[in-house]
Amino acid sequence: MSAHPEERKLHAIIPAGGAGTRLWPLSTSTRPKFLLDLLGTGRSLLQETVLRLAPISASVTVVTGAAHAAGVRQQMGQVLSTDPEAAHLEVTVVEEPEGRDSMPAIGLATAMVRSRVGEDAVVGSFAADHAIRNSGAFLEVVSRAIGGAVAGYVTTVGIQPDAPSTAYGYIEPAQLEVAPEVQLVRRFVEKPPAETARRYVAEGYLWNAGMFVATTGVLWGHLARLHPQMAASLWELGSSWDDFTPREQATAWDKLPRVAIDHAIAEPLAAEGGMAVVSSSREVGWSDVGDFDALARLTAAPDSATVVKIGSADTYVSVPDRKLVALVGMPNAAVVDTGEAILVVNRDCAQDVKAAVDAFRLSGFAQFL
Amino acid sequence: MSAHPEERKLHAIIPAGGAGTRLWPLSTSTRPKFLLDLLGTGRSLLQETVLRLAPISASVTVVTGAAHAAGVRQQMGQVLSTDPEAAHLEVTVVEEPEGRDSMPAIGLATAMVRSRVGEDAVVGSFAADHAIRNSGAFLEVVSRAIGGAVAGYVTTVGIQPDAPSTAYGYIEPAQLEVAPEVQLVRRFVEKPPAETARRYVAEGYLWNAGMFVATTGVLWGHLARLHPQMAASLWELGSSWDDFTPREQATAWDKLPRVAIDHAIAEPLAAEGGMAVVSSSREVGWSDVGDFDALARLTAAPDSATVVKIGSADTYVSVPDRKLVALVGMPNAAVVDTGEAILVVNRDCAQDVKAAVDAFRLSGFAQFL
Repeated sequence: MSAHPEERKLHAIIPAGGAGTRLWPLSTSTRPKFLLDLLGTGRSLLQETVLRLAPISASVTVVTGAAHAAGVRQQMGQVLSTDPEAAHLEVTVVEEPEGRDSMPAIGLATAMVRSRVGEDAVVGSFAADHAIRNSGAFLEVVSRAIGGAVAGYVTTVGIQPDAPSTAYGYIEPAQLEVAPEVQLVRRFVEKPPAETARRYVAEGYLWNAGMFVATTGVLWGHLARLHPQMAASLWELGSSWDDFTPREQATAWDKLPRVAIDHAIAEPLAAEGGMAVVSSSREVGWSDVGDFDALARLTAAPDSATVVKIGSADTYVSVPDRKLVALVGMPNAAVVDTGEAILVVNRDCAQDVKAAVDAFRLSGFAQFL
Repeated sequence: MSAHPEERKLHAIIPAGGAGTRLWPLSTSTRPKFLLDLLGTGRSLLQETVLRLAPISASVTVVTGAAHAAGVRQQMGQVLSTDPEAAHLEVTVVEEPEGRDSMPAIGLATAMVRSRVGEDAVVGSFAADHAIRNSGAFLEVVSRAIGGAVAGYVTTVGIQPDAPSTAYGYIEPAQLEVAPEVQLVRRFVEKPPAETARRYVAEGYLWNAGMFVATTGVLWGHLARLHPQMAASLWELGSSWDDFTPREQATAWDKLPRVAIDHAIAEPLAAEGGMAVVSSSREVGWSDVGDFDALARLTAAPDSATVVKIGSADTYVSVPDRKLVALVGMPNAAVVDTGEAILVVNRDCAQDVKAAVDAFRLSGFAQFL
């Protein structure tokens, strides 16, 4: 999908943190999920995210931790130099002194865009490590969200559920349309138990995928009103980030609260009638690639003479090249060998990989996690 | 268990061949099952076999292929030099020019013992790669079998089944006792289907574990009568093996039929009333270590901080030292990583590992098998 230059008005913000613990041992603290080519496309999830947004974006601001800044810069340089679709992007990599959840990261990047472009600039924050099957359909959804943003709402993208998942928070849309195909949000609800999730799905609730689109003016107005101290600090930092020494950045950062944008803005604003939502249909093919079950659904294993499966359909395999793998009587599993660690997991228990990682951490194996 | 030197009258014969395909990738053609320390005792299955028989044996003859002769010699040297219980053993390692099943191998070793010790010498052939939990109880069983041999019978050891296995042939004992606690064999039957196996177990049939004890005079008499040409060739070879060049050995060997002692002697002899059997109770703890299910039953996994099991009880793990292993929702499996190959198998399907190995062979990966 290409877009007319005038349509490239989005300023994408991509907080790139998070351990991807449930994808261990593929994903580790030194080799985080967003930097990995998990889908075998030749590009990392972060690179795919940037390329996907490129047709409608003027700039991309990636906010990441010190440990991954070099990796992010290297991958961004690669995208800009090899993908003509992305060549026009103004890319900024911001090194967060410390992870403080999403609000400070998104707030800092918003302050940067606001000081650089102005109050009418549209920012949109997107996860660095999700997957989208149909980019064209996704950009149409984001374009609708931009419509909601321009109409004065902080607009989120809600995913039409394909199952009553208990792994996501839900969004209850109201009937009222505030822009074409953009509805008011009645409320956000936390990850529900299974029974509640079934009811939510039946009643048309959407999954909260953590995407937020707004003009800098509107978003900043709400931040300044709801969290004046944080807004003041973030503005001071973001409007002249490079004028501060790393030590000054860290000192100021250290005073910010650790809070998600959901709690800081989306939930209180929904209660005031200031949040909107666009519905992303299943055709978009969104996935948070949240565990090995999700990853297995996204990747069709190529036929390989080095992998023999007997009674082991639907089993995901990731091992070093040229290593022989035999699966016998192992349907619906995932087998991952990184050389230094092996995971074998029943896909139905894929969320419990986190518990295994926690156990290794308690045993002092943090350097492998 | 120690024995008075006069009681060391057995001449043990140990055919050491066989791929152990169902234990791939632990067992391979270059690293066969019998040379491996599968039970974590610090000794290979072959070494354990020799040590187990040492208290009642005067000599041990291991018949193996050229590819494994060096490994067998090295392991035998180690046993003789480090285990006082085995220091008295006369050990011979015979390099078979080519594997031709058990009759030529056992016949050659029997000829060697017959020419060296005489007609009254008692030979007993035992698999190189089985496991016995209770050596003392096992030697009592073998001593009874020696009684049957001295009474003029080719005497086999039958295993009291602990399940209606379809993986073994069965032995039907007759009521008649030919020596103390040694019964005549009515017949041998092939590996049965499950329903038949249940009936065999209910009717007191025993598993055929391929152990045969006889005097050289009796065994040679039957071989010369049933297979005169093979007997003549084996006698010529075995009575002066070292006088032949390897090429001459190979030329003569090449003319021998490929046949198991079960078909060559045990089955026809049972029909004539010349086979006897001693029953080995469950207390002996025999196992053929035939697949990963059997291996898992024999090995209690030590607690290890590098192995985390969540919902994965009874799962067997063998991986390189210091490699982390996480099993999640994987009860009753076996996970084996040798560095060059990984196997993940449901223990209930452990016999099907052979099919995986066959598939790799067809794909041209013989060097890994």
